[in-house]
Amino acid sequence: MKFTKMHGIGNDYVYVNCFEEQVWNPSEVAIKVSDRHFGIGSDGLILICPSNKADFEMKMYNADGSRGEMCGNGIRCVAKYVYEYGLTDQEHISVETLGGIKYLDLTVEDGKVLQVKVDMGEPILEAEKIPIVSEHDRVIDEPITVDGIEYRITGVSMGNPHDVLFVEDVKGLDIEKVGPSFENHERFPKRINTEFVKVLDRNTVEMRVWERGSGETLACGTGACATAVACILNGLTEHEVTVKLLGGELKIEWQGEGHPVYMTGPATVVFDGEINLDEM
Amino acid sequence: MKFTKMHGIGNDYVYVNCFEEQVWNPSEVAIKVSDRHFGIGSDGLILICPSNKADFEMKMYNADGSRGEMCGNGIRCVAKYVYEYGLTDQEHISVETLGGIKYLDLTVEDGKVLQVKVDMGEPILEAEKIPIVSEHDRVIDEPITVDGIEYRITGVSMGNPHDVLFVEDVKGLDIEKVGPSFENHERFPKRINTEFVKVLDRNTVEMRVWERGSGETLACGTGACATAVACILNGLTEHEVTVKLLGGELKIEWQGEGHPVYMTGPATVVFDGEINLDEM
Repeated sequence: MKFTKMHGIGNDYVYVNCFEEQVWNPSEVAIKVSDRHFGIGSDGLILICPSNKADFEMKMYNADGSRGEMCGNGIRCVAKYVYEYGLTDQEHISVETLGGIKYLDLTVEDGKVLQVKVDMGEPILEAEKIPIVSEHDRVIDEPITVDGIEYRITGVSMGNPHDVLFVEDVKGLDIEKVGPSFENHERFPKRINTEFVKVLDRNTVEMRVWERGSGETLACGTGACATAVACILNGLTEHEVTVKLLGGELKIEWQGEGHPVYMTGPATVVFDGEINLDEM
Repeated sequence: MKFTKMHGIGNDYVYVNCFEEQVWNPSEVAIKVSDRHFGIGSDGLILICPSNKADFEMKMYNADGSRGEMCGNGIRCVAKYVYEYGLTDQEHISVETLGGIKYLDLTVEDGKVLQVKVDMGEPILEAEKIPIVSEHDRVIDEPITVDGIEYRITGVSMGNPHDVLFVEDVKGLDIEKVGPSFENHERFPKRINTEFVKVLDRNTVEMRVWERGSGETLACGTGACATAVACILNGLTEHEVTVKLLGGELKIEWQGEGHPVYMTGPATVVFDGEINLDEM
């Protein structure tokens, strides 16, 4: 099986061009290839397929073989792949995902895709739909007690649940301790992804993320979107925010209620490879 | 740069055929390619080169860019590579390493290398040379107090220092806690690799290893050798011992004092790839 290893600010997947390759048992293949010592090593497997509804379909599988809905870092890599490997010559493309059809704008220079802008859809702010248990319709700068300490959170769903909190010190944070306490708190019935954010100026924030089920990760696209939305709702930033994550930077734009969130960031080809799955 | 990703029971390196490729700055390349999110992902880089002294030379670089002397799991992969990729048709080969010239026997079936036997040299048992601080010339079944608990250790150097201890329960061991306490104990002036071993029968043992500077690893070739030597010195096994590690099995043979230790195990090609180092 031919493949290409790519990452979006450190969120790395094995990409397979299913216009040329056939993958019969993608869940099994995802588990095999994702292993970082015995396999290729990745956060999962993404198949780039033909679609009846959009220009392409992105079929995503997590490292444990489960089906993934959508991934902001992954879909930018899909855009880079289809353009640079000659599957399209368009700079505006649509991609079918389990989270709906996504529209992407490519910034191209000398045949290389430098940045990809993704329409990530509208944020969901209703507490019940995120879901977060609250006495209010929305959770904006609301107190919560975790491990005996009072924090203030803002709740945002980008299809998956996030709570955002503002801290003085992002780097020194003991995220391994506090992350799980948020994740499993009784106010988050479907657990939660938590963003710890420091505002640097009116257009720049720094962030670390604890993803439910994964722990701390280098990059979380929906987390960066939720962070920018929370910053804007709390009046801490303008409508364009550069979010600095451990793995790199994303630019997030949100004009406010009724508007979608746009995420712009890079995608990187690491290497092309060929693997004999029968011999693994 | 063309490369091949291989592993020996989970100890994985990026292999480059330097009969065809040139690597100008191997330390830098090792750091780049070893990164498991932004690079290829590996424990390091191994260059397969021509040699004036042996059939081939193996130049090894760790993930941090430092030069590695020798690696039992790595050299088996070198043997598989040179045979299966047509650099030799011999089943007995010699490989120059920073740890001296090593001699290898290949077990071949239908053109595939199934097992590789490596002469790992004679074990060093003198306490001073390992080094372990002791009142005795050798450290065999000697008491040591670590974190207030008394253990009994046997000391063996295979070019690098090991202490081996026998335990009832390998799987339930809290190695993250006890490993560092051994590693930094005052009786090990150059720190130590510690093997925690359960004897299953006269020819089989189970082992976990804490490697100095690396923590717990899936496989440690010299650790498996030290373990077998310690078992034989303590009369716990015969002269051929199958060592079960987290990443797989190795067969170790030692006929006793004055004889070298032979290690036999598999090597696996995971995939072939091509990477553009300038674009990383």
